[in-house]
Amino acid sequence: MGIAELTGTERDEALAALPEWALVRDGKAIGRRFVFADFSEAFAFMTRVALLAETHDHHPEWSNVYNRVEIELTTHDAGGLSKRDAAMARAIDALVA
Amino acid sequence: MGIAELTGTERDEALAALPEWALVRDGKAIGRRFVFADFSEAFAFMTRVALLAETHDHHPEWSNVYNRVEIELTTHDAGGLSKRDAAMARAIDALVA
Repeated sequence: MGIAELTGTERDEALAALPEWALVRDGKAIGRRFVFADFSEAFAFMTRVALLAETHDHHPEWSNVYNRVEIELTTHDAGGLSKRDAAMARAIDALVA
Repeated sequence: MGIAELTGTERDEALAALPEWALVRDGKAIGRRFVFADFSEAFAFMTRVALLAETHDHHPEWSNVYNRVEIELTTHDAGGLSKRDAAMARAIDALVA
């Protein structure tokens, strides 16, 4: 059994609970940009996200330029957003809350 | 004093010594893609690159999707490629040699 893509209503509800995240890729993913003081702080954050990713078995598509980190979450098996993306976004948000 | 952009000849010589790297961004940067067995191995590599970046005080522009890591190196202060990019590329190559 695969994991289901969120319905439109489910997606709206998930996004309402994730105000820092925006829909990207025609609604197939959510993204957030993080800005830190420097590379050291940015990479420390990335390390914590990497540990979350392994715990959740759900991995970000992300990039880093010095103090900036851009994260996108999508679920390939669902062909778009799933509850796994929302759960991962909440866990990432908790790191910087 | 800023750091100088490589001349055409210097750039050719640097690239000849970095056969795994390609010119990108109209010759203003060099890039290489790395593929690992899984996310854990990819992020372990990224951690080592992050330590190099701090040691060299020269930071990559990079992205990661699961087991793939794409790195681009450029020197903003030089407006393009400098010897710092070549040195960083050599150090990164040494990690996977």
